[in-house]
Amino acid sequence: MNHITFQQDRELDFIGLGRLCIDLNANEINRPMEETLTFTKYVGGSPANITIALAKLGARTGFIGKVSDDQFGRFIKSYLHKLNIDTRNVVTDHTGAVTGLAFTEIKSPTDCSILMYRNNVADLKLEAGEVQEDFIKRAKAILISGTALASSPSREAVFQAIEYARKHQVVIIFDVDYRRWTWKSKEETAIYCNLVAEQCDVIIAGREEFDVMEIVTGPEVKDDSATAQRWFERQAKIVVVKHGGDGSIVFTKDGGSSQGGIFPAKQVIKTFGAGDSFAGAFIYGLLQGWPVEKCQEFGSASASIVVSSHSCSDAMPTVEQIENLIREHRANSSI
Amino acid sequence: MNHITFQQDRELDFIGLGRLCIDLNANEINRPMEETLTFTKYVGGSPANITIALAKLGARTGFIGKVSDDQFGRFIKSYLHKLNIDTRNVVTDHTGAVTGLAFTEIKSPTDCSILMYRNNVADLKLEAGEVQEDFIKRAKAILISGTALASSPSREAVFQAIEYARKHQVVIIFDVDYRRWTWKSKEETAIYCNLVAEQCDVIIAGREEFDVMEIVTGPEVKDDSATAQRWFERQAKIVVVKHGGDGSIVFTKDGGSSQGGIFPAKQVIKTFGAGDSFAGAFIYGLLQGWPVEKCQEFGSASASIVVSSHSCSDAMPTVEQIENLIREHRANSSI
Amino acid sequence: MNHITFQQDRELDFIGLGRLCIDLNANEINRPMEETLTFTKYVGGSPANITIALAKLGARTGFIGKVSDDQFGRFIKSYLHKLNIDTRNVVTDHTGAVTGLAFTEIKSPTDCSILMYRNNVADLKLEAGEVQEDFIKRAKAILISGTALASSPSREAVFQAIEYARKHQVVIIFDVDYRRWTWKSKEETAIYCNLVAEQCDVIIAGREEFDVMEIVTGPEVKDDSATAQRWFERQAKIVVVKHGGDGSIVFTKDGGSSQGGIFPAKQVIKTFGAGDSFAGAFIYGLLQGWPVEKCQEFGSASASIVVSSHSCSDAMPTVEQIENLIREHRANSSI
Amino acid sequence: MNHITFQQDRELDFIGLGRLCIDLNANEINRPMEETLTFTKYVGGSPANITIALAKLGARTGFIGKVSDDQFGRFIKSYLHKLNIDTRNVVTDHTGAVTGLAFTEIKSPTDCSILMYRNNVADLKLEAGEVQEDFIKRAKAILISGTALASSPSREAVFQAIEYARKHQVVIIFDVDYRRWTWKSKEETAIYCNLVAEQCDVIIAGREEFDVMEIVTGPEVKDDSATAQRWFERQAKIVVVKHGGDGSIVFTKDGGSSQGGIFPAKQVIKTFGAGDSFAGAFIYGLLQGWPVEKCQEFGSASASIVVSSHSCSDAMPTVEQIENLIREHRANSSI
Repeated sequence: MNHITFQQDRELDFIGLGRLCIDLNANEINRPMEETLTFTKYVGGSPANITIALAKLGARTGFIGKVSDDQFGRFIKSYLHKLNIDTRNVVTDHTGAVTGLAFTEIKSPTDCSILMYRNNVADLKLEAGEVQEDFIKRAKAILISGTALASSPSREAVFQAIEYARKHQVVIIFDVDYRRWTWKSKEETAIYCNLVAEQCDVIIAGREEFDVMEIVTGPEVKDDSATAQRWFERQAKIVVVKHGGDGSIVFTKDGGSSQGGIFPAKQVIKTFGAGDSFAGAFIYGLLQGWPVEKCQEFGSASASIVVSSHSCSDAMPTVEQIENLIREHRANSSI
Repeated sequence: MNHITFQQDRELDFIGLGRLCIDLNANEINRPMEETLTFTKYVGGSPANITIALAKLGARTGFIGKVSDDQFGRFIKSYLHKLNIDTRNVVTDHTGAVTGLAFTEIKSPTDCSILMYRNNVADLKLEAGEVQEDFIKRAKAILISGTALASSPSREAVFQAIEYARKHQVVIIFDVDYRRWTWKSKEETAIYCNLVAEQCDVIIAGREEFDVMEIVTGPEVKDDSATAQRWFERQAKIVVVKHGGDGSIVFTKDGGSSQGGIFPAKQVIKTFGAGDSFAGAFIYGLLQGWPVEKCQEFGSASASIVVSSHSCSDAMPTVEQIENLIREHRANSSI
Repeated sequence: MNHITFQQDRELDFIGLGRLCIDLNANEINRPMEETLTFTKYVGGSPANITIALAKLGARTGFIGKVSDDQFGRFIKSYLHKLNIDTRNVVTDHTGAVTGLAFTEIKSPTDCSILMYRNNVADLKLEAGEVQEDFIKRAKAILISGTALASSPSREAVFQAIEYARKHQVVIIFDVDYRRWTWKSKEETAIYCNLVAEQCDVIIAGREEFDVMEIVTGPEVKDDSATAQRWFERQAKIVVVKHGGDGSIVFTKDGGSSQGGIFPAKQVIKTFGAGDSFAGAFIYGLLQGWPVEKCQEFGSASASIVVSSHSCSDAMPTVEQIENLIREHRANSSI
Repeated sequence: MNHITFQQDRELDFIGLGRLCIDLNANEINRPMEETLTFTKYVGGSPANITIALAKLGARTGFIGKVSDDQFGRFIKSYLHKLNIDTRNVVTDHTGAVTGLAFTEIKSPTDCSILMYRNNVADLKLEAGEVQEDFIKRAKAILISGTALASSPSREAVFQAIEYARKHQVVIIFDVDYRRWTWKSKEETAIYCNLVAEQCDVIIAGREEFDVMEIVTGPEVKDDSATAQRWFERQAKIVVVKHGGDGSIVFTKDGGSSQGGIFPAKQVIKTFGAGDSFAGAFIYGLLQGWPVEKCQEFGSASASIVVSSHSCSDAMPTVEQIENLIREHRANSSI
């Protein structure tokens, strides 16, 4: 029991909505990008990663988004398709938009950065009229990724999707996923993220992301419990506050909270993808009806696997891999 | 008693938010504009007109908006000031924006049109950060004019103002005021007007405006009562559906409704300004605590005076003028 | 004889190219615009004024430009038509552009200013493909107004028109008409005005306008004669340097120059329109084959008449009016 | 003797102006890009390639351009620096622009395509005021790359550079390098390329590029000789018309022309870079004072080497490599 009730008669467990991008990961790592010679391409973008995570865990998933009408757009769509992610609502742009790119630079496991290409990207061209009510109503849950709010017309598409989800009792999960690019100001971010958060059942964000959402209305003191409480007064039933290397705290509407640490990784290659793999596995747990503590542990173990790998999407683990890690970890801890 | 409870300890009765423009009314009327030689200038814009109406009726009013840094901007601000409208939150633009213009063409009392200048207008440049919480909390009621939602950053300023108004129990009145200019699509209009309407206590719109708001989510059948009901499930306590020459229907949350006709005008010059004068006088009635039927009659009488005049803002009547008209009208009717 | 040879077998004497606008002149003058109540509308825009001047002097004229698809656009086109100005290459915009506006403020005869509306104006939407070679080749001379260079696609239309004019030996006259609005920087102005001036037979500009054109390439010392010389090395045969209230100097390629004063006006109302009326009458003289001194005097007399009137375009004088003034002036001087 | 006289007292032989980009070349070739896993990064962009070609041939070179303020911009600048290309006039953007990208897709040696990223690119942000007169006057020749004309402010920077080059007798070479992206229409391309070509000493373009330049003014019949003649009437002394796989024709102002074939490549990997390597080696020959026939042969041999390699810039050959190939080829031909 975890406070979330999913409609059981649904064809899909989960739909992701938002960014579909290409990650170009440096092959020669532990150096500045200037000295990198080659890059490997992967599907990327936070909601894409989360959906892929769920698909690899065995959930029946789908996606709502927009891709460019070129080789990269086709690659993304066919990659999702191969993972059995339903792409019927992945629209192809016809205005000359491009696929967003993220070139990763890994100077050291703790000094990573990203060179983004976000001008005229297809994912932000998704229009309200392209969101299919008939698709949304088939799902138990939908994930709204906050970057999709960063500009029009994608922003309106999000509000449209939320309208449909509410109408059909689809559980709405909001991953704030705040990235500075594209947003005009933090005030703008706060206004739209708050308008969305108000209507969501589950809210997942880092402490700094909640801080941005609170710059206009306060409260002055940044306090996880107060933050969660604010949203429980609206629609939220679960609020997850992420604290990076210090783990996460999950609050539930009944007043409960669960502090979770991170799983020690064998060999951290980079920090990218930790949040997405956590979110994917956590949501998977919710769908199974697990207690939030178990969801949280499952998420942390998944993150630990991804940070030890070269990619984000490709490295998303299976249930077995996660369970093995948890088992191993417990064995070690009990020695 | 009219279902709306105003906080009584407030310094201001009413704040308008949105467009501040210049009307340039043809002096030589009953002909196409091509043959007009001269124009007379007035302050215009729907929320400006409504606020002026309330000021002339004796209410203590203020305004939140943005004006151009030129002769027209200064004229508007000084005009409001002369009517005792508090302009402390009327900001001056410094980006080179201009004042919106409306050249009116009066071919006949029933064939009027407007030539709009809405490129790079100051009113749509109002930013969220420029809306003063300290000003809003001094008022009993705030009017949100829908055109302020038509583009950013003014759109965000509206959401900001609503956030402050809710926080301080300021009654929120939404005048949809849908004008095609500036909006990208009807879907966009529907999405943002619905996000606002959800949070308002009083909603005033024409039937066609409600139709636009309902294009996405339905209902299929356009029905005034169903429209009102939808909003009573959210925050609304009063919904006014305007039917142009056929009057208006006012719905109240307790299930009541009041059908109101229009007042016969002595000599209709043009139809501009009818809606704004109605809204101003209707809101004045709410502030007095009058029953909605009385508010409605007061509004209709006010509209009848304005359509018989050359201007909108300048022609807004006093309480005495409206009461005289109502008295006269009753006398005639009883003969 | 004036150094310019016009092709004599042409149907039209003159074609103007560029801005077609509306002037809204304050009726209540000698006060700030804030206190102006009414405005009178006239056709305006420098090349429009010059073409109207020539039409009123009896030249056979035409125009190349673009007007908005509304009442103001139709008013402009019909006004030109009434003056027998050939409007076959006055195109109507269909993108929702508006007519540029100039509200004039006359605080005193020497303190005048203009409030411009230049956002999304139709005149700057003229496209290269809309300029008719077949129309240009019918004319003796074409006037390029520098404001048409201020942005694309009108800028490209100018270069297209010049290409056609050169091909068909149409005399090219360049009126720099530098207005700060729309241009991004003085460097940009200099670059494009120089690219045009290089290809022109007659160049007319104020001293300050030549200064802008010389900011990139010098010469350091601002000297009328050096300025003129620079263009005589390219295509120019006549260079007119205007000095406002101090009159003008006309340089000719053969090394000649003529200093001209201004005509005393009976009662100066405003300074607007002085330059356009001068240019129109000066070009009229060139077309008659008059010596430049006589063209210059004719221009100055025309300017004197216009500054004594309320409008620019409407007040452009006839040959008779100008000749009367010159005669009168000579009579007075000889006393 | 080749009709071009270079000022001999110059510190630099050659300056390139325009695009500085990144090529990301598919490592797994002969397949659609969807199936490519990794990409190798190189410096790219036509004028960059030509300048690199000249640097590798031993010419003293420099560059005028703008790079992004990120890892890619720093990589480009340091790469040029390592080849002794003078980068003092390579400006760093500070507006958030990115480096243009070209992902190459090599399906087969004859079926290659490029996926371009050209939104908000740094190279098109070069401003007129950033072009250094003091740098240009140190060179014998400057190359204008047509893509730099595709939009403002880079377009104005080109005209500025030409103004300086003319002032200081720097030979101006125009490589039309027409790419559809960024240009609004072919008419726009024609107008600006013609304005530049008018002022150039050497013009290099493919037949299809000259066709675009002639769409407005004709001539109707596309004829290489007529095309060349048109420019000889202005400033041009040499006009090179490229015919892809059929080689090139070089026209000289004295009426001469030289037909040149292509060099058979041992193993063609892709066609990218053929034109740039030809241009680089051809210009190198002009700088040596070689007859145009010899320049042409040198250019063709260079192209043959580049199309047999994986990259463009990195593969630019040395004088020795080109001479070896020519010698080998003659030996084979004479058998």
